[in-house]
Amino acid sequence: MRTLITNGTVVNADGSYRADVLIEDEKIAAVGLVGDGSASGQVISALAGLAVDQTIDARGRWVIPGGIDPHTHFDLPFGGAFSKDDFETGTRAAAFGGTTTIIDFAVQTKGEALRPGLETWMAKAEGKASIDYGFHMIMGDVNDATLQEMDALVEEGITDFKLFTAYPGVFLSDDGAIFSAMRQTAENGGLILMHAENGVPIDVIANANAEAGLTDPYYHGVSRYPIFEGEAVNRCIRFAEAAEVPVYIVHLSSRDALEEVVRGRDRGAMAFAETCPQYLFLSLEDMKSGFEGAKYVCSPPLRPADHQEDLWRGLVKDDLQTVGTDHCPFDFVGQKDLGKGDFRKIPNGLPGVEERMDLMFQGVVNGRYPKERWVEITSTSAARIFGLAGKKGVVAPGYDADLVIYDPERKHVLSAETHHMNVDYSCYEGMEVQGGSDIVLSRGTVIVEDGEWKGRAGAGSFLKREIAREYLK
Amino acid sequence: MRTLITNGTVVNADGSYRADVLIEDEKIAAVGLVGDGSASGQVISALAGLAVDQTIDARGRWVIPGGIDPHTHFDLPFGGAFSKDDFETGTRAAAFGGTTTIIDFAVQTKGEALRPGLETWMAKAEGKASIDYGFHMIMGDVNDATLQEMDALVEEGITDFKLFTAYPGVFLSDDGAIFSAMRQTAENGGLILMHAENGVPIDVIANANAEAGLTDPYYHGVSRYPIFEGEAVNRCIRFAEAAEVPVYIVHLSSRDALEEVVRGRDRGAMAFAETCPQYLFLSLEDMKSGFEGAKYVCSPPLRPADHQEDLWRGLVKDDLQTVGTDHCPFDFVGQKDLGKGDFRKIPNGLPGVEERMDLMFQGVVNGRYPKERWVEITSTSAARIFGLAGKKGVVAPGYDADLVIYDPERKHVLSAETHHMNVDYSCYEGMEVQGGSDIVLSRGTVIVEDGEWKGRAGAGSFLKREIAREYLK
Amino acid sequence: MRTLITNGTVVNADGSYRADVLIEDEKIAAVGLVGDGSASGQVISALAGLAVDQTIDARGRWVIPGGIDPHTHFDLPFGGAFSKDDFETGTRAAAFGGTTTIIDFAVQTKGEALRPGLETWMAKAEGKASIDYGFHMIMGDVNDATLQEMDALVEEGITDFKLFTAYPGVFLSDDGAIFSAMRQTAENGGLILMHAENGVPIDVIANANAEAGLTDPYYHGVSRYPIFEGEAVNRCIRFAEAAEVPVYIVHLSSRDALEEVVRGRDRGAMAFAETCPQYLFLSLEDMKSGFEGAKYVCSPPLRPADHQEDLWRGLVKDDLQTVGTDHCPFDFVGQKDLGKGDFRKIPNGLPGVEERMDLMFQGVVNGRYPKERWVEITSTSAARIFGLAGKKGVVAPGYDADLVIYDPERKHVLSAETHHMNVDYSCYEGMEVQGGSDIVLSRGTVIVEDGEWKGRAGAGSFLKREIAREYLK
Amino acid sequence: MRTLITNGTVVNADGSYRADVLIEDEKIAAVGLVGDGSASGQVISALAGLAVDQTIDARGRWVIPGGIDPHTHFDLPFGGAFSKDDFETGTRAAAFGGTTTIIDFAVQTKGEALRPGLETWMAKAEGKASIDYGFHMIMGDVNDATLQEMDALVEEGITDFKLFTAYPGVFLSDDGAIFSAMRQTAENGGLILMHAENGVPIDVIANANAEAGLTDPYYHGVSRYPIFEGEAVNRCIRFAEAAEVPVYIVHLSSRDALEEVVRGRDRGAMAFAETCPQYLFLSLEDMKSGFEGAKYVCSPPLRPADHQEDLWRGLVKDDLQTVGTDHCPFDFVGQKDLGKGDFRKIPNGLPGVEERMDLMFQGVVNGRYPKERWVEITSTSAARIFGLAGKKGVVAPGYDADLVIYDPERKHVLSAETHHMNVDYSCYEGMEVQGGSDIVLSRGTVIVEDGEWKGRAGAGSFLKREIAREYLK
Repeated sequence: MRTLITNGTVVNADGSYRADVLIEDEKIAAVGLVGDGSASGQVISALAGLAVDQTIDARGRWVIPGGIDPHTHFDLPFGGAFSKDDFETGTRAAAFGGTTTIIDFAVQTKGEALRPGLETWMAKAEGKASIDYGFHMIMGDVNDATLQEMDALVEEGITDFKLFTAYPGVFLSDDGAIFSAMRQTAENGGLILMHAENGVPIDVIANANAEAGLTDPYYHGVSRYPIFEGEAVNRCIRFAEAAEVPVYIVHLSSRDALEEVVRGRDRGAMAFAETCPQYLFLSLEDMKSGFEGAKYVCSPPLRPADHQEDLWRGLVKDDLQTVGTDHCPFDFVGQKDLGKGDFRKIPNGLPGVEERMDLMFQGVVNGRYPKERWVEITSTSAARIFGLAGKKGVVAPGYDADLVIYDPERKHVLSAETHHMNVDYSCYEGMEVQGGSDIVLSRGTVIVEDGEWKGRAGAGSFLKREIAREYLK
Repeated sequence: MRTLITNGTVVNADGSYRADVLIEDEKIAAVGLVGDGSASGQVISALAGLAVDQTIDARGRWVIPGGIDPHTHFDLPFGGAFSKDDFETGTRAAAFGGTTTIIDFAVQTKGEALRPGLETWMAKAEGKASIDYGFHMIMGDVNDATLQEMDALVEEGITDFKLFTAYPGVFLSDDGAIFSAMRQTAENGGLILMHAENGVPIDVIANANAEAGLTDPYYHGVSRYPIFEGEAVNRCIRFAEAAEVPVYIVHLSSRDALEEVVRGRDRGAMAFAETCPQYLFLSLEDMKSGFEGAKYVCSPPLRPADHQEDLWRGLVKDDLQTVGTDHCPFDFVGQKDLGKGDFRKIPNGLPGVEERMDLMFQGVVNGRYPKERWVEITSTSAARIFGLAGKKGVVAPGYDADLVIYDPERKHVLSAETHHMNVDYSCYEGMEVQGGSDIVLSRGTVIVEDGEWKGRAGAGSFLKREIAREYLK
Repeated sequence: MRTLITNGTVVNADGSYRADVLIEDEKIAAVGLVGDGSASGQVISALAGLAVDQTIDARGRWVIPGGIDPHTHFDLPFGGAFSKDDFETGTRAAAFGGTTTIIDFAVQTKGEALRPGLETWMAKAEGKASIDYGFHMIMGDVNDATLQEMDALVEEGITDFKLFTAYPGVFLSDDGAIFSAMRQTAENGGLILMHAENGVPIDVIANANAEAGLTDPYYHGVSRYPIFEGEAVNRCIRFAEAAEVPVYIVHLSSRDALEEVVRGRDRGAMAFAETCPQYLFLSLEDMKSGFEGAKYVCSPPLRPADHQEDLWRGLVKDDLQTVGTDHCPFDFVGQKDLGKGDFRKIPNGLPGVEERMDLMFQGVVNGRYPKERWVEITSTSAARIFGLAGKKGVVAPGYDADLVIYDPERKHVLSAETHHMNVDYSCYEGMEVQGGSDIVLSRGTVIVEDGEWKGRAGAGSFLKREIAREYLK
Repeated sequence: MRTLITNGTVVNADGSYRADVLIEDEKIAAVGLVGDGSASGQVISALAGLAVDQTIDARGRWVIPGGIDPHTHFDLPFGGAFSKDDFETGTRAAAFGGTTTIIDFAVQTKGEALRPGLETWMAKAEGKASIDYGFHMIMGDVNDATLQEMDALVEEGITDFKLFTAYPGVFLSDDGAIFSAMRQTAENGGLILMHAENGVPIDVIANANAEAGLTDPYYHGVSRYPIFEGEAVNRCIRFAEAAEVPVYIVHLSSRDALEEVVRGRDRGAMAFAETCPQYLFLSLEDMKSGFEGAKYVCSPPLRPADHQEDLWRGLVKDDLQTVGTDHCPFDFVGQKDLGKGDFRKIPNGLPGVEERMDLMFQGVVNGRYPKERWVEITSTSAARIFGLAGKKGVVAPGYDADLVIYDPERKHVLSAETHHMNVDYSCYEGMEVQGGSDIVLSRGTVIVEDGEWKGRAGAGSFLKREIAREYLK
């Protein structure tokens, strides 16, 4: 199977140029046979003789590496319910939004080993995912046995481990567990991911508020002070420095947290961080409208709007390297409403896997960063950090042909009525964005074309990721 | 003319992969037709029919974008003498070291307009340069007329302007001149380069030392406190923030200076900086051996060795974006000895244009940064910052075929006996390095091959550079 | 002559306590003979036999060390005019406000030596000052001769020297002059005072604004960016660190400047700073009402109101050690109006010597700092820093009996109608403050009593100040 | 009873002056009747008639407020043993060293209320202490009941509460407990004291080292990374900011920790810190000599010597406000040797209550800070912070006559042979110091005179301390 994408502009993290892209089966075979004559006719005519099974005309559009969303939660059990998107609906929605790789989180249940958790999540994805996927491993129970288990998982392509300073009694690991996991990981070549938000004092405040009758969703946001995110970020980075291991802060939401990442990096720490579109486009104000605010309940919560500018600066200056979605949707009707009368019972999580690429493209539209940086924060950096270098994140020969034909001019409106995520609301209802994914290829196969689904559940493969220490400096 | 580089590994700033590189005349036509069969046979056989004029076997080696040295001083008049390398010997030496683009400095003479200075330097390069070259414009006299002149120069591809806080009475501009030039540049889209080292208090100390009989070259280094570099860097960045213009600190040498760049970037300043190999590999200690120390007299001076680690970290964390050489060689015998008995009279400058790529490669050898980052700091970043994006700095279709076949394993010894720079000593005499440029192409033509010169004086072209604001965030 | 102050509460920088204060002639003889019986009857009866010439009942009030205003400009020539208060009206107004020591600035005229300037100012004060006074020396011309002169002045009690980074062509010293003066002072034991605000780029902006027709007083404030104060503060502190001399920033006005002082002190610099009430109570907003804004024209200018909170914090945390007034009044009618139509011609300066103690007392009223800190920032710290330790600034035996009976409860309204400064407006017109100086003694003599003037022009003495390095750490 | 101290120089935190000090019974009655004639003869003769029971000639010496050691552990149970000094030997040794007030720590036992702990410690002191004493309350068990109990204790003069981030399973409180106690204290006016050193990851390392056979005392020091002290200090200060309560870091030992205090104070946090002489004069190197190192086992541990300079700077710049000793002595023979073969079993603690004043005086001898600052950090600041303002810490009327006649010239050698602490070694064996306490008075009574003990067990009183929020800004 051979596909030729002609007349487009390739946009990579390191530069942009007009070029054709030739795909052989699942991989990019060549870049550069520009159809409009910039190379000599001989090459073109030589190749013209090739039987190209399919030609895609990308004139006026860009050819970018498919997006990598390093943070999704498909089919996640949460207090009796499950996040609404499973690996079928979730990966399809991702693809519609120009994302061709997701890394989800397998969860270790307390009292069990890591492997059963991994196997459960492998099974959830198997036969359902339409794009490639990997897993981070959430460690719910750090002990001598699970510490030992980590090494094998790294070898099997589960190269990182997520721990929590939040959710006491559920996911929270104490400082000894976190530090022990870091020491183990320092040896096995993996990476530690942290939900860095000190849930213990947060719960003191949340409970005090709830007991005082302040039960609206808004108080979810109010109770989780940014200061506690900053504190936890500093703690995690300090521990990582002590353990001499790289650390990656997931879903960084606040200035307080960013400042600690910056400070850590300034002194040389191997510290990395991801933010999410919701922290750049939404704010605590959005939580104010009574129970409607439940739509925006996630942790860390939305912050006062003045934090946003700092996060954008973090993306520009590479203090934030990636953008994940923390996609974890719950229906407003039937799920979010579990928390009516008590914000503590609202399932935590937002939908967003579909909108990430377009929302982040607004940074290009607004002149915050160049298009190359957009590709880097939505794809290339994640590939490097998560052990997919050489395989994903660049339009270049030998890489998987995960490609998006992106129209930088097309405007469209975000809405639950038109989105493909399996959830009954959109966080960005009615917002017009510029830019959109017209055609999406996963390993050489067109899976989305002009709004039509052409993919197949089960076509996505598990990604055995590599140790990435070389890129975690 | 068609050249095929086969079997190599392309190393770009955003990734590495095995690929063939096809060159048509002066440009890269295609990447990816990997000769060892990773693409299907049909493509290869289609292309096999092409008349390839030349095939270079890069097996076991890397294909990298030719180095860009953004800071050279060829044929520079300095106190009666001229720096020993002119554009012929200088660009040839650069090429031997894997550098295929240099940006030199045209100098405006006090009392004259900018253009005559530019024309003088254009003439110096014309017919001599064997690789492509551009010019930064040194402003020696800021006034209403020269401020107006700046805009035209930007349009003509001289997109940046260098000013000095050092060398009172020679190059030093006062704060009003600097700030006025910045305001002008904020409008015309250019970039301001600063030699940021407060030469005024430095001269107070230098004169006091000299008058106290401390006249050895070592006192050149001792008199120029790092604190005065830090001060000037902060001043320049603050001015740039006030003027809302990007600023680029040349030859940053010290921790004090780096800290100010870091601080500026952390608060969002459009501040960039270049360091030089001499500040990473040499130190103030090297200046201690009597008049031998004159070999290392440059400004800013070599620093105590404990500054080096900070600079390496700056490169890793992208607080330093580029590595220039500030190549400005004077013979030890016959030139440097003008300063015997008075360090203030030693011509300032070191040779280095040839050794940059190999020295910086040691950062890869030592595991400080990945090979992609090496390409970025020696080539890609400079291309982006200096208006050569899309033309230089990436191995990709449409880019100039400035390429180096680099052997990452070959070891060799740096020495004046073997180097190609026109100067009678090496700063790194006897130092063994790993890695070396085997074959060097400039716009499609092999100019160095296995130590043999195949280039031609005059083959290099003047680079009309573009406004680069998009990349100066 | 013996005076007994009974029943009051002594408030010193290190503590407060009920005590009587016995004055013998010009000095405090004893503290502690509390009249209400807390000491045993025997002491009281022993002392009861003393012939006390005068008894002041301070019941319900505080006995504090008289204020020290380290920054006044009486009788200062400025563009043809003179600041309206001379040493007679100025010191009388100071006394009414509870200030019993001022340190004014003698000015060296360019081209002359330091001594004539000092003598001119000595003559201005002689026979006029009703309270004690010292002089800082403004260096208008740094050269070998004046550098030598500095040492003698230090010996004669002029222990510090002020230089300017502002007012190009008038007071501005270049970096070489500043650094040379610092080096000299490092040896002679003195202190360097800096007006730290980079006047050179400021003038570029001010001129551009004026030429663009933006001539209202407001543009005086707008043109002098806080960033240029921060820059200059950093520069001065860095120079001082290089010269190993203490440095004192006068009239610090902005967050930008404070941050640099904080940073300097955090790394151990011998850096000190004074702010003024106008920067704590007034803001750029006050300059907006057309030419009325001229009342508030001073340099550095008033800042956006959000800087105020930072300055208050600086006082609390001892990053700001003193509060001066920079008192330099010009009548609104007849002087300030020289700048109608061109803000650059408005005489720079505000009245304020009378209101300092009361305004700063609001920090106690509002719970920002304890009353002891109020005494410290308005008196004790200045005494230590400026070589008056052991003589001024503490209510203790052997100290000059410069004392204020302060009523912490009395409210009054600030107004040009009631103030004693010789100027036709008040910056704080109509503002009600809590606290007031009821009785003021200068070296044992009552000079103000319940709003009545009892002092005498000429009663004030020149203060030969001591080297204070011990306290300048 | 009336005592007159004549001819001395009073040294207070805010100034020094020659003065006599008159004591009536337990309090200072007056200051200033200088015997050498600086006040008029009449006062002297009037007082000469007084029956003075005792005259102390302080000629050539200083009269300072007695030292306040805010951190002692007398009679502390620790793993079966008790710290060797009880309130009798401990307070006597303190007095010999010029300290006239100590604040010890009452310990709440897990599972019990606060009050029984307080009563136990009250009983330990009762009848034994020869100088005045107060108690901090160590909270070993934070729960709803003990939170309620806090308010009453504050009213009874136990105005602060100490919690630990170290000693897991023993004293460690989790973040919820710490934060809850802070919230309670924010309301009741008290102060939170923190042992800020994250004991959880420390134990991971300590256990790993011990299990690896690294059992020497040196590994106690090595295992407790400074980074974990810095982390905990930041955490505690952040929590305190969230709770809006002042926080005081006890026994701060490292640069890492100081930096966080500085950072907190720079942003306005009500954060305070104490260091100890051992961190200024001893270092990790001292722990290297095999089991001899056990003498120096305390937590936080001694640090590499390059931390010392930072701590001295912290004292100079008031980022460290006080100096405590953390006096907690265990005999080298018979107690420390419990940890032979396993550093984890060595009782933690050093002797030092006797040497504090003299060691800190070396800062004056070496010109680091003036003598007034020495008085402030050893006495006045602690009085203000711990609710003893107006009673202790100043030589002024109405204050307790806790006074030391200090000879600033006398040299002596520190040694276990001559010290009065009940422990078989000295940390400073053989070290010569300049300065010494010649005569010590506690509430008007001479308790030490020229090396002779004149005090009485039981003469010391419990200090009911006041709320000090006014001084905790």
